[in-house]
Amino acid sequence: MKHVAVTQEEIDVRHLIEWVQDRNCGAVCTFMGTVREFTHGKRTLYLEYEAYQEMAEKMMEKIGDEVLEKFQCTKIAAVHRVGRLDIGEVAVAIAVSAPHRKDAFQGCRYAIDRIKEFVPIWKKEYGEDGSYWVGCNC
Amino acid sequence: MKHVAVTQEEIDVRHLIEWVQDRNCGAVCTFMGTVREFTHGKRTLYLEYEAYQEMAEKMMEKIGDEVLEKFQCTKIAAVHRVGRLDIGEVAVAIAVSAPHRKDAFQGCRYAIDRIKEFVPIWKKEYGEDGSYWVGCNC
Repeated sequence: MKHVAVTQEEIDVRHLIEWVQDRNCGAVCTFMGTVREFTHGKRTLYLEYEAYQEMAEKMMEKIGDEVLEKFQCTKIAAVHRVGRLDIGEVAVAIAVSAPHRKDAFQGCRYAIDRIKEFVPIWKKEYGEDGSYWVGCNC
Repeated sequence: MKHVAVTQEEIDVRHLIEWVQDRNCGAVCTFMGTVREFTHGKRTLYLEYEAYQEMAEKMMEKIGDEVLEKFQCTKIAAVHRVGRLDIGEVAVAIAVSAPHRKDAFQGCRYAIDRIKEFVPIWKKEYGEDGSYWVGCNC
């Protein structure tokens, strides 16, 4: 079972964890990507994420299916936020449940790697010396 | 920075996540080990965990230090519960923050593997055909 979304709302990882928990799972792995202040010594003030929403959700659905096919995972929930995000805010969160921990870790890692590579969400960084697009996700 | 504990209280992973979040981190990885109902077709009714408390906390401190030394991780919080746990309850939870996701995943995985291998906490399973100790953690 999977649940994916691209949203303007603040992400509460608790909801994702609750959604994936299952009495036949012994493991839940979660990942949160948060807005970092410094990258290679350069200060970020805030970020803006922009999505090609319909395609982004379709791609996230596909990635959810892949996780459930490739690993012994039971449920996956993945949410990406768009709009303006301040330092420390959660840009993307994933929760994966599985009977065993190896699969939960692998499924979660696979999901975030694929999301960063393939989902059409762009990030614009606002720093002290202006703003610039930093490509599709990452 | 690290925070570890062995506790009788219910584990709330939110507190661990809040504790590790850091404005210079772009990644938080968490793991929760939960009580599974079926293992190889055998039904578990509930579990009891018993710790050699002082040594268990010392070992968890050591594992926390190892994670911070071996990987580019910023903070780690790890809590193991003891006493009676029902199906679905969280027995162990770990949260690790890092500037980048690779380190957050590696540190979190390393921590749970080491905890299961080395921390003196024993698990007694209560099933439909009686109870038995299932060794040190795992």
